[in-house]
Amino acid sequence: MADRTSGHLASVLRVSALHHLGVAVASIAASRAVYEQVLGLVCVGEEEVADQKVRVAMFQPPAMPAACRIELLEPLADDSPIARHLQRRGPGQHHVAFAVDDLAADLQRLARHGVRLIDEKPRRGAHGMLIAFVHPASAGGVLLELCEPQRP
Amino acid sequence: MADRTSGHLASVLRVSALHHLGVAVASIAASRAVYEQVLGLVCVGEEEVADQKVRVAMFQPPAMPAACRIELLEPLADDSPIARHLQRRGPGQHHVAFAVDDLAADLQRLARHGVRLIDEKPRRGAHGMLIAFVHPASAGGVLLELCEPQRP
Repeated sequence: MADRTSGHLASVLRVSALHHLGVAVASIAASRAVYEQVLGLVCVGEEEVADQKVRVAMFQPPAMPAACRIELLEPLADDSPIARHLQRRGPGQHHVAFAVDDLAADLQRLARHGVRLIDEKPRRGAHGMLIAFVHPASAGGVLLELCEPQRP
Repeated sequence: MADRTSGHLASVLRVSALHHLGVAVASIAASRAVYEQVLGLVCVGEEEVADQKVRVAMFQPPAMPAACRIELLEPLADDSPIARHLQRRGPGQHHVAFAVDDLAADLQRLARHGVRLIDEKPRRGAHGMLIAFVHPASAGGVLLELCEPQRP
């Protein structure tokens, strides 16, 4: 598709930046101290996503609204995807989310290029974003999220 | 140490931003296509770190030098920490690295606060950075790296 020095010129997508990093935890309350009290991040949003049976809390360095965030994910039920992740792999990194401008169009482009998608259409995630997941089999073992943040 | 709304005011550290995300892969050559040709990132550095027996390659959105990077880590020997990670957990996310201004002082502060460190003193990592790892037991299951980038 493209040579190594100009990979982005002919790439399928052009993601803008890493938006957040999802971390599975048994309890946000018990896990937030390392981010807030040790690293000095601040919580920039906390909510429940009923669809995924999770509670999420986003952390970011203070006064850096464009910086990549840490998203803690706590399961609200035993059949939450995060509960299954905790059972299989324990607490730790869950997914990596890149921001895109037009998620619906990007998913169509990915599908046309044979990328295996978990979500073929955008769905509503936390923080008012549209989100979709790419299967780790198409992303070198990484559970990849694409997210379209709300316009300010 | 601090209440939930002002955690950073009294925090142990004040990390500046997520610097990169380490991803363990069996082969950088076989894994880079998803980052370059699918996501449209560009490679901003590739080198061997003999100390860790790894080859690393950094990827970033084009023209965003401050954006959080993806670091692919390929083992160069069977006793590399990355080879052991691949054997235990398969390819995927390995560590999360925050940038700090004074790593040596920060490690002393962490140790005084009872944070379990893998590296008690800074060591030389890739890309000319000083680095040190915090044990996942002190970071909610996440292998945390602190890195002090070179001054421009």
